[in-house]
Amino acid sequence: MQEVNLGLYFLSELVGTGLLILLGCGVVANVVLAKTKGNGGGTLMVNWGWGLAVFIGVLASAYSGAILNPAVGVGLLIAGKISAVQFFVAAGAELLGAILGAILCWIAYRQHFDEEPEAANKLGVFSTGPAIRSYGWNFMTEVIGTFVLVFAVFAFADQGDINVGVPGGLGPLTALPVALVVVGIGASLGGPTGYAINPARDLGPRIAHALLPIKGKGSSDWGYAWVPVLGPLVGGAIAAFASPVLLGLAA
Amino acid sequence: MQEVNLGLYFLSELVGTGLLILLGCGVVANVVLAKTKGNGGGTLMVNWGWGLAVFIGVLASAYSGAILNPAVGVGLLIAGKISAVQFFVAAGAELLGAILGAILCWIAYRQHFDEEPEAANKLGVFSTGPAIRSYGWNFMTEVIGTFVLVFAVFAFADQGDINVGVPGGLGPLTALPVALVVVGIGASLGGPTGYAINPARDLGPRIAHALLPIKGKGSSDWGYAWVPVLGPLVGGAIAAFASPVLLGLAA
Amino acid sequence: MQEVNLGLYFLSELVGTGLLILLGCGVVANVVLAKTKGNGGGTLMVNWGWGLAVFIGVLASAYSGAILNPAVGVGLLIAGKISAVQFFVAAGAELLGAILGAILCWIAYRQHFDEEPEAANKLGVFSTGPAIRSYGWNFMTEVIGTFVLVFAVFAFADQGDINVGVPGGLGPLTALPVALVVVGIGASLGGPTGYAINPARDLGPRIAHALLPIKGKGSSDWGYAWVPVLGPLVGGAIAAFASPVLLGLAA
Amino acid sequence: MQEVNLGLYFLSELVGTGLLILLGCGVVANVVLAKTKGNGGGTLMVNWGWGLAVFIGVLASAYSGAILNPAVGVGLLIAGKISAVQFFVAAGAELLGAILGAILCWIAYRQHFDEEPEAANKLGVFSTGPAIRSYGWNFMTEVIGTFVLVFAVFAFADQGDINVGVPGGLGPLTALPVALVVVGIGASLGGPTGYAINPARDLGPRIAHALLPIKGKGSSDWGYAWVPVLGPLVGGAIAAFASPVLLGLAA
Repeated sequence: MQEVNLGLYFLSELVGTGLLILLGCGVVANVVLAKTKGNGGGTLMVNWGWGLAVFIGVLASAYSGAILNPAVGVGLLIAGKISAVQFFVAAGAELLGAILGAILCWIAYRQHFDEEPEAANKLGVFSTGPAIRSYGWNFMTEVIGTFVLVFAVFAFADQGDINVGVPGGLGPLTALPVALVVVGIGASLGGPTGYAINPARDLGPRIAHALLPIKGKGSSDWGYAWVPVLGPLVGGAIAAFASPVLLGLAA
Repeated sequence: MQEVNLGLYFLSELVGTGLLILLGCGVVANVVLAKTKGNGGGTLMVNWGWGLAVFIGVLASAYSGAILNPAVGVGLLIAGKISAVQFFVAAGAELLGAILGAILCWIAYRQHFDEEPEAANKLGVFSTGPAIRSYGWNFMTEVIGTFVLVFAVFAFADQGDINVGVPGGLGPLTALPVALVVVGIGASLGGPTGYAINPARDLGPRIAHALLPIKGKGSSDWGYAWVPVLGPLVGGAIAAFASPVLLGLAA
Repeated sequence: MQEVNLGLYFLSELVGTGLLILLGCGVVANVVLAKTKGNGGGTLMVNWGWGLAVFIGVLASAYSGAILNPAVGVGLLIAGKISAVQFFVAAGAELLGAILGAILCWIAYRQHFDEEPEAANKLGVFSTGPAIRSYGWNFMTEVIGTFVLVFAVFAFADQGDINVGVPGGLGPLTALPVALVVVGIGASLGGPTGYAINPARDLGPRIAHALLPIKGKGSSDWGYAWVPVLGPLVGGAIAAFASPVLLGLAA
Repeated sequence: MQEVNLGLYFLSELVGTGLLILLGCGVVANVVLAKTKGNGGGTLMVNWGWGLAVFIGVLASAYSGAILNPAVGVGLLIAGKISAVQFFVAAGAELLGAILGAILCWIAYRQHFDEEPEAANKLGVFSTGPAIRSYGWNFMTEVIGTFVLVFAVFAFADQGDINVGVPGGLGPLTALPVALVVVGIGASLGGPTGYAINPARDLGPRIAHALLPIKGKGSSDWGYAWVPVLGPLVGGAIAAFASPVLLGLAA
């Protein structure tokens, strides 16, 4: 592993996660907010939008290996692929990037936020919420979804397709599989909770929602906020412990 | 061919098929069960969901060459690419993996199963059923669909893109074509029977449906169960016999 | 160019075009026929279905370079990339393959053809028809659509990604771009005529429609049949003459 | 950098942008105009259609490196990757190509333009318009969307995947990521303004709309025309200045 410039590492995660959230929250805005051209565009459009948001985010953060997600980071940390310092630097950058991305999304859709009558739809652009509220089951769903994500990332890594903590290696050939995995998880496991599967993806925009002077906004639903933070971290950790065994590398 | 560790081989097929079924049954759950975020998401979403489930399953079972389907296995066996022992080990792992994947799907969507009023929709998440029941025609449709799948796999294999029974060779470049083939078969040939095209994909979840304490579940429709088992096996076998001729390799 | 075995060449085009039509007509059947699981699945599903039908067809006919379309063939003939004998052998194989593919599609959807009340929907599974009938404008639309297709194929060829008349070279990396081009043409230029852009794709299934004992079938609309044959041939020829100039290779 | 033949350079940009606009405006025509087969096909279909229009346009303009967009051109100019002469030659070719592409689209959909009752839908096929008119916010949205596009192009360039001003280097592996980025931007940031993100894409077709004898056409909405020209240029310029810093290359 080459020496890592932590400033560039922070910047890379911030930019990648910022784009991820700008585009990811953007597709929800397009589908749910009033008077947009994509209003009512459907669930598959949301799934593709988030997947391609990951695609663009990965392309933009080659320096740091495009972690973009503290649940992925915790997996890489457990697997010894990044250091604790790298994990915390990345997680901080991801949270800040997510806040900034959500603010940019609000700017891009400013008038549609103003015209949207439902406060719940406004929050829904920023952060996830359960279709049927039940913290235990919602937590379980987030654990399972994130396990699949981080396990798939480890399956790539085993095949030499991702570089972590090293500048330069992460190109379109890796961005596409990760994006497709996210489209798939969204379509398949997004039904109950809207698939946060990433603590920064949910917490950052929720903070932005709380801070921004959004016209007619309602509660930021902090009671639910721990689920899409803790669930993904647990799912990522399980994937990190299970991957060497399940991929046949521990033998 | 390197020597195969049958334990790792079993594990690889179990994990890959487990993920395939978790995500494949998951997208049906998202589209059909009550109160999900993807409810009414449409047929194309189901097709993409199953295709990307295959994508993730293939990524996760590189050790065993990602057979994931006894109909593919029977084709590889006939073609002499795997041994009878490998076939039976893989088939057992696929069936068990499919049962476990279906159970995980039920856990992820637990509350939506509880709230869904229609028993037929609950079974539909687990296993396939005919749009118009007629065992002969339904069988024929499954034969044709699986023939296309296994024939396409042989077309890849002829071009050196898949490794069977050898660790390490199966990367994103192969997972994507297989996934796209499954999206295409689903869109094009899924109309009459819901495209099992894989005995484990149908039988495993049907067993899970029979065993699980699903609230308000109805019949597991065992009368139909032989169609999506035998049809795919016959289709895969035909593809194995026909491929060398049809691909111009028998000359 | 290696010597071509014309028997294998014929077989390769027959198999590839047969799969193309089985899956292409299949997705229309799934979306339009009564009681299918994909009924009402929408235009984008049809576009993806046809594109992935091309994907699978290309994978299956590596020996002959996956022409699959007399409009592509006429372009390759004009460009001197295939001989007149190859063109006619391929065109015959494509027409026969298209007839056989359409028959297989009818078998796969047999019961849904029987239950479909509208004769026009039955014909629509087999061959194309104009949204607004006007032979001149319909012809023009087919010319433009096929020009784009054949021009794109020449753009690939210039970059060394397709092999014509040589066994072995056509793999997933080429099948995917061609498939995406067809998805794009369908979405963008399919509105007025349903994008035959391939004489065999339209004429073969129309012959199958005329011959098969389809319950309650209506006219095979032979008055329109010349449009999706002649339009694509003209579009392909124009592309062949224009490509060297437009791609900057004639300088 | 090899010496550039400006005639071929102009031709390459003209052909690529012409195809981009033919197919891009085509998908809108298919979805919005009366009596087309794709009528009501939805926003995701429009997003895929535009993305695949970019895919085909990039394939067709390998000689010039597929700029296709003055906002990309201005970014490449600022970054010193193309000369001022190249920028102006390309921009002129793009504008002319966009006009010609729009005319071809009108020909392909001629009867559907004639049958469409709403003048606004006719203009909507050609050029973009705001969902909620407010020049300041619309401008901002176009700046953000184009920033993402040009920034992503720079992220590719940094990884050696695009060649600018040199014949031959731009193949399917680059066309696909750019296309997916455009699908993603459309889904995520297209809601407020319909994502011009390209001055030629909007101005060229608007000129064609003004010039063509379209039956029952209304205003070409010149009051809005500066927004999708100036917004993208500003967004592209910001991306050019920010990219070296944000990608960690300026250190």
